[in-house]
Amino acid sequence: MALASKLIDIHTHVYLPRYCSLLRSRTSVPRILTSTRDGKPDDRLLILDHEPSGGRPVGPQYWDRDEKIKFMDRHGIDLSVVSSANPWLDFLSAPEAKTLALELNEDLEQYCSESPQLSSSSLKRLYGFGLLPLVPGISTSSLLETIDQISKLSYLKGIIMGSRGIGKGLDDEALDPVWAALEKAGLVVFLHPHYGVDEKAWGDKDNGHVLPLALGFPFETTIATTRLILAGVFDRFPSLRLLLAHSGGALPQLSSRLASCIDHDPVVASRLKHDARWYLGKLYFDAVAYGPEELGFVADVVARSERFESGRPANMPPTVARTLGSKRMLFGTDHPFFPPLQSTEKWKSVVENLQAIDSVAGWGQAEKEGVRGGNALSLFNLI
Amino acid sequence: MALASKLIDIHTHVYLPRYCSLLRSRTSVPRILTSTRDGKPDDRLLILDHEPSGGRPVGPQYWDRDEKIKFMDRHGIDLSVVSSANPWLDFLSAPEAKTLALELNEDLEQYCSESPQLSSSSLKRLYGFGLLPLVPGISTSSLLETIDQISKLSYLKGIIMGSRGIGKGLDDEALDPVWAALEKAGLVVFLHPHYGVDEKAWGDKDNGHVLPLALGFPFETTIATTRLILAGVFDRFPSLRLLLAHSGGALPQLSSRLASCIDHDPVVASRLKHDARWYLGKLYFDAVAYGPEELGFVADVVARSERFESGRPANMPPTVARTLGSKRMLFGTDHPFFPPLQSTEKWKSVVENLQAIDSVAGWGQAEKEGVRGGNALSLFNLI
Repeated sequence: MALASKLIDIHTHVYLPRYCSLLRSRTSVPRILTSTRDGKPDDRLLILDHEPSGGRPVGPQYWDRDEKIKFMDRHGIDLSVVSSANPWLDFLSAPEAKTLALELNEDLEQYCSESPQLSSSSLKRLYGFGLLPLVPGISTSSLLETIDQISKLSYLKGIIMGSRGIGKGLDDEALDPVWAALEKAGLVVFLHPHYGVDEKAWGDKDNGHVLPLALGFPFETTIATTRLILAGVFDRFPSLRLLLAHSGGALPQLSSRLASCIDHDPVVASRLKHDARWYLGKLYFDAVAYGPEELGFVADVVARSERFESGRPANMPPTVARTLGSKRMLFGTDHPFFPPLQSTEKWKSVVENLQAIDSVAGWGQAEKEGVRGGNALSLFNLI
Repeated sequence: MALASKLIDIHTHVYLPRYCSLLRSRTSVPRILTSTRDGKPDDRLLILDHEPSGGRPVGPQYWDRDEKIKFMDRHGIDLSVVSSANPWLDFLSAPEAKTLALELNEDLEQYCSESPQLSSSSLKRLYGFGLLPLVPGISTSSLLETIDQISKLSYLKGIIMGSRGIGKGLDDEALDPVWAALEKAGLVVFLHPHYGVDEKAWGDKDNGHVLPLALGFPFETTIATTRLILAGVFDRFPSLRLLLAHSGGALPQLSSRLASCIDHDPVVASRLKHDARWYLGKLYFDAVAYGPEELGFVADVVARSERFESGRPANMPPTVARTLGSKRMLFGTDHPFFPPLQSTEKWKSVVENLQAIDSVAGWGQAEKEGVRGGNALSLFNLI
């Protein structure tokens, strides 16, 4: 099988053993709580306040590399770019976060470097996104030092980050040196949610995790990315490569409304170099949206960015747009989250994302192979 | 011009004179504050806490019917279904809200009944959405009485409502008699946002109204509709006709993720009769999204509802889907909000929404005419 037709998972998480130890030692969220259920030890992960159902059952699939490889084999995934799962280091003090970031980045490098070889290639099967100690009170030099560390670890191809920055969100000018360093190092920034929006929005009914996960998570990504656009971060750092979790949340569908609202606000409009929709063409989107219509739409929105490039012709045919837009979309699974409720050979959440890619109207074999893996090879400089 | 090719605006607001008087008399938001600027009286509307730039300038376009007709004439709009603008009666006590709802519904009936005749038809140019006194402490009988009033006012074709219900949101079982009565009366429910989400999400930067309007408003609509789905309201009231502001916000783009999250939560999944995506095919969406890709996508999502109808064939060709989905989409302007910053003949916000309809890939003349007005004639029983 040619490298270009490999299946690559760019949205797949791990709690590294060192991080698990920390979670097990804690008495408030985030934590892993071990109790006994039916006479057996029962590990529960609590990462949100007020977790429904006593937390999520967790097991070795969260920390054991062999389990990751087994999951990949079961689903035909050739290569994964693994990232620490939320909430990363957000809850730690600056000195703790810095120490642990440096340690976990080394741990992840080892996790990847000791992974199996990808058949008929010089690649390994695991690569990773490192962590920065993005917490209040951290010094810029500590952040830059960690970026430098990651850029020298050959299996780490980017970093994963949440939306809080060093306490004031990602539109904080204090992060400009961080964006500059990430841009210069060519590290991909994977923006991933954790906090959602204020839980009062979900009301009193017991809907389990549905509302914070289905809506809160994508809302958070949408807000963070919009704030980056409004702060001019993509104007100042045009080569920054930002990958958005969950296909960018709601940003594609709200992007023309965003452009219109900016148009009607002269203070904001005057700050930006481009129509808001232009910036969406500079972003990367995972294909974790569970439906083909969603994926096709994201591709359309990526491609229409060209309409807002000054001096370009107004329109391209819709079929061409959808094809071009696919280049910035990348398969992901969100493993080990969304496990099946019953024992099944393949996970429904994974099958749905693969079927979605396969069913996008207007995508041919080349586009599907690109989203399944070819685009990841390019984005992460694996070829 | 045949009735079917009329241009009909179903998302257009008014603060009726009686309501303006109330706003002028108030000392906290919502209010109209009159001061003097450059020697002239300057009316500012303050409807949100912490309004940027001292509030929005307001003038007769907010309350004067002649201004509404002038706006319609300028943009070629034949007929408008007018609704009170947010925040409606939400800030009043139950007795005040009830009295004012009954009065404003009579006022709006008169506003419409005395409007000009639509040429070569038996229709008027203005119809309306009434108001219910949806506030904490209101009795069910007061709500039912108001629905009965509206159903007897021949120019009122539905009601507009926010997302708070009688204090606990729209997934409150206490509203079941209201949904039943609205369903039975055949009144369209126009769900419109006002509160957004907690403003802490927007951060410290001055982005004017952009974030709460561009993101907060559609998030609120998305949450409210999702909570209605999760509460089984559409299972219990299958003929309820709900029209979503701003093309349903982010609901279409997050609907497959929503379905997946429900699938992974057995308690919630067992409550619902259908896959979450099925319900989107039962809703109506305004076409106030400012971009053709967004509108085409909403049509796709409406049409795919059929895939989740038990016993139906799995797929329809994408071109057919987009055509069918258009039947539940309706042109709107959001007038008198989003006025142009400079004096122009036509409002950019309106022109963009018309251009978007005209540019949807896969829509022919019939679909475009439907979204421009034909669908509204059917939905509001105007033919």
